[in-house]
Amino acid sequence: MIIGGGFAGLACAQGLAGAKARVTIVDRTNHHLFQPLLYQVAMAGLSPADIAVPIRSVLHDQDNVRVLLGEVSAIDVAAKTLETNAGPLTYDYLVVAAGARNNYFGHDDWGKAAPGLKTIDDAIDIRRRVLLALEAAEQTTDAALRRALLTFVVIGGGATGVELAGALSELSRYIVARDFRHVRHGEIKVILLEGGPSILTTFKPELQKSGIRQLEALGVEVRMNAKVTAIDHDGVTIDSGGASVRIDAETVLWGAGVKAQPISAALGAPTDRGGRVIVGKELTIPGHDDVFVIGDIAAITDADGKPVPGVAPAASQAGRLVAKAIRATIAGKPRPVFRYLDKGSLATIGRSAAVGQFGKLGFSGFIAWMLWMAVHVLFLVGFRNRYVVMLEWIWHYLSFQRGARLITGGMVPGTFFHRAAPDASVAEERKKVPGT
Amino acid sequence: MIIGGGFAGLACAQGLAGAKARVTIVDRTNHHLFQPLLYQVAMAGLSPADIAVPIRSVLHDQDNVRVLLGEVSAIDVAAKTLETNAGPLTYDYLVVAAGARNNYFGHDDWGKAAPGLKTIDDAIDIRRRVLLALEAAEQTTDAALRRALLTFVVIGGGATGVELAGALSELSRYIVARDFRHVRHGEIKVILLEGGPSILTTFKPELQKSGIRQLEALGVEVRMNAKVTAIDHDGVTIDSGGASVRIDAETVLWGAGVKAQPISAALGAPTDRGGRVIVGKELTIPGHDDVFVIGDIAAITDADGKPVPGVAPAASQAGRLVAKAIRATIAGKPRPVFRYLDKGSLATIGRSAAVGQFGKLGFSGFIAWMLWMAVHVLFLVGFRNRYVVMLEWIWHYLSFQRGARLITGGMVPGTFFHRAAPDASVAEERKKVPGT
Repeated sequence: MIIGGGFAGLACAQGLAGAKARVTIVDRTNHHLFQPLLYQVAMAGLSPADIAVPIRSVLHDQDNVRVLLGEVSAIDVAAKTLETNAGPLTYDYLVVAAGARNNYFGHDDWGKAAPGLKTIDDAIDIRRRVLLALEAAEQTTDAALRRALLTFVVIGGGATGVELAGALSELSRYIVARDFRHVRHGEIKVILLEGGPSILTTFKPELQKSGIRQLEALGVEVRMNAKVTAIDHDGVTIDSGGASVRIDAETVLWGAGVKAQPISAALGAPTDRGGRVIVGKELTIPGHDDVFVIGDIAAITDADGKPVPGVAPAASQAGRLVAKAIRATIAGKPRPVFRYLDKGSLATIGRSAAVGQFGKLGFSGFIAWMLWMAVHVLFLVGFRNRYVVMLEWIWHYLSFQRGARLITGGMVPGTFFHRAAPDASVAEERKKVPGT
Repeated sequence: MIIGGGFAGLACAQGLAGAKARVTIVDRTNHHLFQPLLYQVAMAGLSPADIAVPIRSVLHDQDNVRVLLGEVSAIDVAAKTLETNAGPLTYDYLVVAAGARNNYFGHDDWGKAAPGLKTIDDAIDIRRRVLLALEAAEQTTDAALRRALLTFVVIGGGATGVELAGALSELSRYIVARDFRHVRHGEIKVILLEGGPSILTTFKPELQKSGIRQLEALGVEVRMNAKVTAIDHDGVTIDSGGASVRIDAETVLWGAGVKAQPISAALGAPTDRGGRVIVGKELTIPGHDDVFVIGDIAAITDADGKPVPGVAPAASQAGRLVAKAIRATIAGKPRPVFRYLDKGSLATIGRSAAVGQFGKLGFSGFIAWMLWMAVHVLFLVGFRNRYVVMLEWIWHYLSFQRGARLITGGMVPGTFFHRAAPDASVAEERKKVPGT
């Protein structure tokens, strides 16, 4: 029984292909999501279907797997049963790979004003907010409101925050300059807030500095040591070196941290501060070697004592290890121990801008970006859209276009337009229109 | 001032390129929609962004146009003013091209149970309903519920209904057979209900018959003379030759008719039964030669007395005529009269299945389908995705895949899963899984 069809759960199900096991994979959505490219959907570069594929479709030729759309509400590790909205289920081996959600560090009320980026629906919501802010700015004649509509704040200097900030700045640079009449891209402010002293802290110091330089070259204002103390629908308050600073912004995005899905508490096992289940070297919980916990919902320590990062390759490796462990157990052999193989990491910043680190080797700029592109296209494995996505990117690169600038899901009445001051004077407007 | 960025409004704005006129185009959405392919989004064949393009983007190099995201709530033709949620606006010439909405013929309560297909959000909603019904059917052990979940009713035998019914049947034929374990495509019933004695009545009788044959070959049950008397969340009741027949179906789609957007009433001009504004040969309303009404919101009679159909080419032609009329008036010349040029019509039914009529010439089957493909790819003009869409189609044709099978917007709790009986016995389930 596998809970979750992300990188960890899917790798485990695939690792059990042909095994003498009946596998059930349950997920709340019908699709596996290529999360590393989710920011591209939020920034109107790709369509949801480019980076999401039905779990059924990925596993369709694996006869020993069944896929269940549903949500797990309770786990009884003693009785080996689960409660789901599709009824009760039993298991011999349980693999919990339910993933993470946004962590507002005790300020869950910030969630409404500052959405995070975890699901396709989140990405569509963020896309709508950003595009509506630009539309409202194009209409309003109220200078202060206009400034707030054109200020975009991204909280968190990790890979997600950096990607969002970079992509936001590019969206404004190329698209607004081209399609909008009144908003000029110079008016748009993208601010990246980081509470600590640097961004991209999983990279070497030189690459951190390079990341800041590359972001600034794209027009992003990077503010370190900026601790967020309040977020509401009108902006953010930060504590910057003891002084309280207010930033008026209609759009605030959250990329500052994640915590485990709440189902982690149902296992009765020790968890860390983020609610992640602490697992041993075999990725099981104490006292229950039939319960594996992997992916972003697990706190995994590598054989050499270092914490394993919450990235897609680590999740896939853990999923494959669990499949091997279950096969070994069925065959009456000892289980393997998890060793994380760090193949290096890449963070993209924008067009021709990225940082990459492979062991002691560091890259930045165009070369890192090309590597990032190659790796991400390569790992869209199982996605029939791999080539379509590649073509889209080539097209974007050559044309500076964004392909998926759709506002769907309604206009979110009351979010922006209630404050957008009426376009009072059509006559005044007309003076600005050339050609007459 | 142009209300609506559909085929009519957009053609008018484009027709005014370079004219000594300041053009404002206002729309409730930020995108122009290639409506003839909307059913492909509903049936998971294409992504929304493949068939929708920002209005700003289409008109970005036309200096005399500004694009406004907003909704018109009132029109005063005497004062030449509009009320919008972005404030009041004035005009010299008004072009009303606000389009149509679903017509439930006095049963607006049917709308919730039987959604129609007019917007991207409608298409995403229909996609979600269809995919969720299949997922629920895969889980349930209640035979009656399973039958209702696997029965899809499409109401209306016009082009929209035929396209939806054909595409639904294909979705089940190729995808369900491949990715689902318990649902077999033979269990799926797609029923097309038509109140009149035939379908596709705008085509010649031979083509109508061919359309029925092609639908039946795809597995669609076509029921003519079936008048719908009730629709609720559990199914449809029809009056079939005097007898009341009940069809239990969890998914009911509406393609039976459209009526004008309500803003049509604000003009104070005569309207037809569907609320369409009756316009003269110059496409203006009586007594106001500065107010043009075009597209699906208008009831247009051709110079030879025939009603002009509510199709994309007619809307574009009317838009271009209005642009010419405005140019003529500015230049002090007489206005042209509208003559609809019927270039023929095509309706697609499915893979290699379609009907087409060009004057006296009729086509059906593979040739009609190839023509339909060619015309639709050709007319995705202005869509940078034209070639991407073409590639997707070639891919679908070769692989029998559907590219965009995503359930987004949440699980619609209470719509399906409250009735899906629990998957009571996992043990029983396991017997069916091979490989163990």
